[in-house]
Amino acid sequence: MTDDCIFCKIVVGKIPSEKVYESDNIFVFMDINPLSEGHCLFIPKKHAATLHETDDASLAEIPLIIKKVTKALDIDTYNILQNNGTIAHQAVAHTHFHLIPKPSADLGLKMEWDPQDEIDQEEAAEKIRNYMN
Amino acid sequence: MTDDCIFCKIVVGKIPSEKVYESDNIFVFMDINPLSEGHCLFIPKKHAATLHETDDASLAEIPLIIKKVTKALDIDTYNILQNNGTIAHQAVAHTHFHLIPKPSADLGLKMEWDPQDEIDQEEAAEKIRNYMN
Repeated sequence: MTDDCIFCKIVVGKIPSEKVYESDNIFVFMDINPLSEGHCLFIPKKHAATLHETDDASLAEIPLIIKKVTKALDIDTYNILQNNGTIAHQAVAHTHFHLIPKPSADLGLKMEWDPQDEIDQEEAAEKIRNYMN
Repeated sequence: MTDDCIFCKIVVGKIPSEKVYESDNIFVFMDINPLSEGHCLFIPKKHAATLHETDDASLAEIPLIIKKVTKALDIDTYNILQNNGTIAHQAVAHTHFHLIPKPSADLGLKMEWDPQDEIDQEEAAEKIRNYMN
């Protein structure tokens, strides 16, 4: 736990939350500023600021629990979003995955899709291939 | 494999792609319409239209491979996005996770955040708790 982290305080109950599930690794609670009904957050209990710093056990478990929660909510249109870094709209520096139901065009996550067709992806592809092999 | 699915055809090589990694379960390739340099897609090899239909082995593996790719690209500001349903901006009906680097405010994923403060989350929370326990 990190003393100044709001989500670490939620995990240990120092700050109240609408908790819906927890396991040894992860904690799930309702977003207090939801974009739509059912909007909830999935976090590792062990503090990590970003996905690339998060423990593997939590990372592997979160999508399975998200899948269960979509069934609990009986939804089939939704977005999963996980932001890293202030510039990428991360508001709390503790890894969190949003599950945001999308019941209609005017509720839920809204995004702008602005492809950069002049980008050459070959250099990035080579970096990934070299690292992974 | 589903005959009319573009991503299934990419997995088996019937449609070319800038592939960067594959394992028994998953396939990773560069997005052909990137929002930023390094934008890539993580998909299960086994066809599933949405996250809630995707096999658990693929779901558990994808975040671990995303983590490795962030290290390969040496990025610490990025968004992970996974859309389900046309209304939620899913363009190809085969589960895919976007890793979208966010190098600057004008590149990468742009979103509108429009919280619905009048929403009561209690009913959704109860549904989740009942299902999970």
